[in-house]
Amino acid sequence: MSSYSPIGPVVGIVGAGQLARMSQQPAIALGVELRVLANNPEESAARVIVDTRIGDYRDLGDLRDFARGCDAITFDHEHVPTEHIRSLAANGYIVHPSADALLHAQDKAVMRERLTAIGAPCPAWARVSSVEDVVRFADSGENGWPVVLKAVRGGYDGRGVWVCRSVEEAAEAFTGGVELMVEAFVPFERELAVLVARSPHGQGVSYPVVETVQQDGICVEVIAPAPGLDAEESAQAQRIGLKIANELGVTGLLAVELFQTADGLVVNELAMRPHNSGHWTIEGSTTSQFEQHLRAVLDLPLGTPKMTAQVVVMANLLGGDDPDLFKRYEHVLAHDPGIKLHFYGKEVRPGRKIGHVTALGSNLDEVRARARHAAVHLMTGEYT
Amino acid sequence: MSSYSPIGPVVGIVGAGQLARMSQQPAIALGVELRVLANNPEESAARVIVDTRIGDYRDLGDLRDFARGCDAITFDHEHVPTEHIRSLAANGYIVHPSADALLHAQDKAVMRERLTAIGAPCPAWARVSSVEDVVRFADSGENGWPVVLKAVRGGYDGRGVWVCRSVEEAAEAFTGGVELMVEAFVPFERELAVLVARSPHGQGVSYPVVETVQQDGICVEVIAPAPGLDAEESAQAQRIGLKIANELGVTGLLAVELFQTADGLVVNELAMRPHNSGHWTIEGSTTSQFEQHLRAVLDLPLGTPKMTAQVVVMANLLGGDDPDLFKRYEHVLAHDPGIKLHFYGKEVRPGRKIGHVTALGSNLDEVRARARHAAVHLMTGEYT
Repeated sequence: MSSYSPIGPVVGIVGAGQLARMSQQPAIALGVELRVLANNPEESAARVIVDTRIGDYRDLGDLRDFARGCDAITFDHEHVPTEHIRSLAANGYIVHPSADALLHAQDKAVMRERLTAIGAPCPAWARVSSVEDVVRFADSGENGWPVVLKAVRGGYDGRGVWVCRSVEEAAEAFTGGVELMVEAFVPFERELAVLVARSPHGQGVSYPVVETVQQDGICVEVIAPAPGLDAEESAQAQRIGLKIANELGVTGLLAVELFQTADGLVVNELAMRPHNSGHWTIEGSTTSQFEQHLRAVLDLPLGTPKMTAQVVVMANLLGGDDPDLFKRYEHVLAHDPGIKLHFYGKEVRPGRKIGHVTALGSNLDEVRARARHAAVHLMTGEYT
Repeated sequence: MSSYSPIGPVVGIVGAGQLARMSQQPAIALGVELRVLANNPEESAARVIVDTRIGDYRDLGDLRDFARGCDAITFDHEHVPTEHIRSLAANGYIVHPSADALLHAQDKAVMRERLTAIGAPCPAWARVSSVEDVVRFADSGENGWPVVLKAVRGGYDGRGVWVCRSVEEAAEAFTGGVELMVEAFVPFERELAVLVARSPHGQGVSYPVVETVQQDGICVEVIAPAPGLDAEESAQAQRIGLKIANELGVTGLLAVELFQTADGLVVNELAMRPHNSGHWTIEGSTTSQFEQHLRAVLDLPLGTPKMTAQVVVMANLLGGDDPDLFKRYEHVLAHDPGIKLHFYGKEVRPGRKIGHVTALGSNLDEVRARARHAAVHLMTGEYT
């Protein structure tokens, strides 16, 4: 708990991961006083935010204590129970995004229903409660196998998503006991993402469309802008993002993950918060996604999403076997005086997202190679 | 005091003003854990740094307690007693800059002696202990009146500097009872500053030379790069900065304030820390001065000082009568979606440096006008 009286507006962030941590940088600039609700003081954001409260985001009492004195409340993750958010709002707290909007990022079936209703491009999908439902879906229309089974709630970074090539694989997904839905497998050419912001006043802003590169369901690289994307498809992606934000009443950031296919764009997932596909904006845009989100939740005018370089590439750092990342700073910083490092202050564990690097420049191949060089060395110690 | 175990290197900053505060932003990115020694928890940096210790920088015991566990120690200001810094170093703590180097930023007479010895361009100067000494100085050579009397120690932002046009004015400066020195008045055309960094390994980096605009001894505007400065004079300023850093054994940042005169450049003041003349680098350079200083004190390779735009203008925000700056954000952010605001989390008091704004672009007049517009509105509420 802080031992000073706030001078600026207080924004409470439920959750204390790296998204809350990186929000502290623009908060310091704007004079916005961040408060986080953390599980423990070792968490990523708790290390850099003085007004850290320890509590359970699933407990309404903890949330109420946390909310007291906040000028606005927002989220580091999507796991706060919908009814608790409604309760806070009913008590007069300003919460962005609202429970009604956030539900679409919490419940994939609700999201698909709504997107289908507003005409956003989606794969064929259905709620399922048995393997028989899945077989019926696969046998209907042009769906066929494989199909994609998804946990309706709680999945992230590839968890809660199963690509099933057979009845047997589908049966296995049901053993988890969670509510599932099925989607047609989308034969995509690549994955794109569009990040938009919408303020309570209704101002909307779209960042340039990016390409995201995934490995095992985890994003490893983001390229801004998406190389070779034609102007019409780029504009369409931005229109989809802004339309969804508007129709769903999103306040703050909305990240829309998209599949690019031979037949056009298809919406994959939504997130209503700063997103991994937007980390490049910290150096790569005049207004970072973290600043934009704070401005939106405080209902301040939004900043320009203009890029600061022609090409920006972000590479995620995933934990390896060696817990000491710092001894590898020497090589990557000496090798490339323009590389930007971001470390989240998390214990290094194999496969865990522990940071990212960003390179800016004008030549795509060169900028990608710089980001890759730094990420590979930081993760493995290898010289490439 | 923090309640977590550090993962990254710990850098202790003595002092908790806005320079320490703005150091937290790159520290978060690099995973460097900042600790500050503050007078109270309401101070600018104490509001955004979890590991804040309350103590007196003039007390060796407090400094020793503070230093324990720090991988490197540096400063937010120049007021730590030299003997205390020596004592910390003697106890094995890594302190940047060293007591020997920092002395040149603490004691203006020591600085002038040394700069004269290494051939850096200085005005005529002398130590003085009486008005008679001042008269003798004014009467010798080409000096004449006015003369500039300076407190040898402790002055900043125009305090401790008196431009004296007569014996009477000189006599008044002596009433303060502080040790004084005299310098010839320099008829300058404008003021410039050059910011350099030097790492313990000996790597040196110079930022582009800037023009600084002062009012009543306080910097109000910084323009990067200095408009119309010819390449030779610019290179000379950078050579002067790098030479001083090297000769004095500076580790970390060195800001050299310069007078541009018809007869060439003259060194005015030195500071060995991030400096107001370098705030533009937060958005205006690939490596901000705050990141550069952290990299230097940790003896990491330095970052490129390359500018991110053709023209960058910073305008300081000085406190006015109205304590509530935030209600004015709306107008300036809506007026200019590219303007960058920095508020230091300090109580607004008339004349106090409470923040700054930065504008980037390609047209000098336009960029200056944007910075000025935002600063004037934030300070006064006027629409210009």
